[in-house]
Amino acid sequence: MTEEEFDVTPFDVEGTVDYDRLIDKFGTEEIDEELKERFFDLAGEKNLYVDRDFIYSHRGLEEALDEYEDGEGFFLYTGIGPSGKMHIGHIISFYFTQWMQEKFGVNVYIQVTDDEKYWDRDVTDEEIERYAKDNIREIAAAGFDPDKTFIFRNREYMGNMYDGIVKIAEKINNSQASGVFGFDGSTNIGMNFWPAIQNIPTFFEEKRCVIPAAIDQDPYWRIQRDIAEKFGHKKTAAIHSKFIPALTGPEGKMSSSKPKTAIMLDDTAEEVEEKVKKHAYSGGGDTLEQHQEEGADLAVDTSFQWLRNLLMEDDERIQEIAEAYSSGEMMTGEIKEILIQELNDFLQGHQERKENADEKVQKMMYDGELAQKMWDRKMTLNLSGRPEV
Amino acid sequence: MTEEEFDVTPFDVEGTVDYDRLIDKFGTEEIDEELKERFFDLAGEKNLYVDRDFIYSHRGLEEALDEYEDGEGFFLYTGIGPSGKMHIGHIISFYFTQWMQEKFGVNVYIQVTDDEKYWDRDVTDEEIERYAKDNIREIAAAGFDPDKTFIFRNREYMGNMYDGIVKIAEKINNSQASGVFGFDGSTNIGMNFWPAIQNIPTFFEEKRCVIPAAIDQDPYWRIQRDIAEKFGHKKTAAIHSKFIPALTGPEGKMSSSKPKTAIMLDDTAEEVEEKVKKHAYSGGGDTLEQHQEEGADLAVDTSFQWLRNLLMEDDERIQEIAEAYSSGEMMTGEIKEILIQELNDFLQGHQERKENADEKVQKMMYDGELAQKMWDRKMTLNLSGRPEV
Repeated sequence: MTEEEFDVTPFDVEGTVDYDRLIDKFGTEEIDEELKERFFDLAGEKNLYVDRDFIYSHRGLEEALDEYEDGEGFFLYTGIGPSGKMHIGHIISFYFTQWMQEKFGVNVYIQVTDDEKYWDRDVTDEEIERYAKDNIREIAAAGFDPDKTFIFRNREYMGNMYDGIVKIAEKINNSQASGVFGFDGSTNIGMNFWPAIQNIPTFFEEKRCVIPAAIDQDPYWRIQRDIAEKFGHKKTAAIHSKFIPALTGPEGKMSSSKPKTAIMLDDTAEEVEEKVKKHAYSGGGDTLEQHQEEGADLAVDTSFQWLRNLLMEDDERIQEIAEAYSSGEMMTGEIKEILIQELNDFLQGHQERKENADEKVQKMMYDGELAQKMWDRKMTLNLSGRPEV
Repeated sequence: MTEEEFDVTPFDVEGTVDYDRLIDKFGTEEIDEELKERFFDLAGEKNLYVDRDFIYSHRGLEEALDEYEDGEGFFLYTGIGPSGKMHIGHIISFYFTQWMQEKFGVNVYIQVTDDEKYWDRDVTDEEIERYAKDNIREIAAAGFDPDKTFIFRNREYMGNMYDGIVKIAEKINNSQASGVFGFDGSTNIGMNFWPAIQNIPTFFEEKRCVIPAAIDQDPYWRIQRDIAEKFGHKKTAAIHSKFIPALTGPEGKMSSSKPKTAIMLDDTAEEVEEKVKKHAYSGGGDTLEQHQEEGADLAVDTSFQWLRNLLMEDDERIQEIAEAYSSGEMMTGEIKEILIQELNDFLQGHQERKENADEKVQKMMYDGELAQKMWDRKMTLNLSGRPEV
């Protein structure tokens, strides 16, 4: 078998979701080769997730890059809902955000939605308290610049945001909120107010806000795009990822509450090994014979998908794996071993950084350059003659 | 004409509103003679408004008085929406609240709804800012105890209340809010969230909250009565007034935006004189002859109603006026002169106290005993295991 016989590349195999259709549905734009090249040029380096088309769609990224080139710049905004422990799917977005921060030298705002989760989920206050603290340490471990990153818990920071939230809330009516979020009569009035709180950080700077998120989150920012210009602000931009398949296969969703579907950030090396061996969905043949004849279906194979999308930087090596596994030369047991190794390397580094995150957390929440500036400031939105506070 | 021929008393003449029907409609209770007596006994003094049945209905006042006698006590909560200058109708409720504070030695919390007015009215932020400052000085002039009174602007104090508001908001759904407040799809999500903010001060102390308000406000507290016990708190009590008729007659509503309907708290003596002479609705006869024959209709006569309900402490004198005016002996011009005199006496004292209110405002908002305690404290509601903050 010569190399020419393979038409598989690790960059064009996908599972059951039709991602092109999602671009059409939401009206976003593909990150095409030209934009990819421009993005990497400006960053000074390519990015694994974008390069492999795991991050593949955007809205307004070109404008944000124009503004970066003009010297105006942009800022990043993301968040976490503290309703459980974090898994590998959660943290990827933060690693990407950190990469953008590092390459473009921009500020990052991270909203910890300890209000929204109380409204949305059957989760106690005690749990929210515990998970908020834990999640913040996980996020800090992604390596953000402690002087350019502000992590804030809504319940704690509300006093500094409320004036601006009042202005935003006045611009959104119940019909719009229910149209976008699906609220109804049984929704509590806290959750119904949530769009105003979700939007305020997009106004933290005059520059354009760029939100890294999974593509299905895109519609939630429609309200921001409708109201931003009323406040003399820019419409928020977004950069969209695909979904990370569950360990148990592309049909499922990785979920902290179903441990076998996910690798948790605090899993031990042994737990990772056991989970991958037991639960990682295989695209390999049902029998040795079938596997050797037909090869593996990379599109549904969790090990391959995770290696390609999230973990394996080395283009040549992932290409080799793609070829060997899809041809039936490599067995499922072998690719699982590779995944276990890569996962444990990743987790080991992450866990060490989390272990030593205390000082960074303190800076990102309170004492760093950006955090101090944010705590000294009362956010407002100038409209109808409100004097600057 | 002997005195015996009069069956008019100044205490049973009312305008066009059927106040008994409002008690039935809202399911509140009348402040009957027995309760009145008990109230005055405990206060150590009678109160003009209650004595004249201007404050005439209640909900839970007996429980609050029981708790007062038991030594547990209660606290008072009221508020102001800063969307305009205040008129005499607005301040009466604060004078009554001040009286209760003085006689029962209780804390008073005054919410300045600079968020709700932004959501509810077509009023600019600049106006809200200006009126909030002005309204607070008017309120301080009512003579509250600076160490037992906390006046707070929602936008400023939100950081200290938000955790508790999150808990309350989770207990109220959109249907309940729209049922009580009439919200619909066109209501903005700020206003829709308002019930949670309105309710939080009823939980500021473990004691029972007592709200002095006009009777039509009673339904807005239904939500509090539905949720209070879920937080281990008491249902809020209320003490209800009738409506103060507009200067222009019992059909109208006193409104800051229609100056001839109201006496503004900053009106000069000359303005008061002119307004009363020109606009005070007269219940007197159309002609001198008719007046002398039939006398005045006290129920619709603004001068008489204002004197009786709001201004004239002296029982004998108001009785004399009632008799003389209803018999046609006293002319409209004469009762208007009495009203002008009483209004100007009242306003002069009020305006002087407002002029010198700066220090009191500072105490009630920031430096007084209660204010300091409130600023040092983060309000929460213990539920589902939330640790004390």
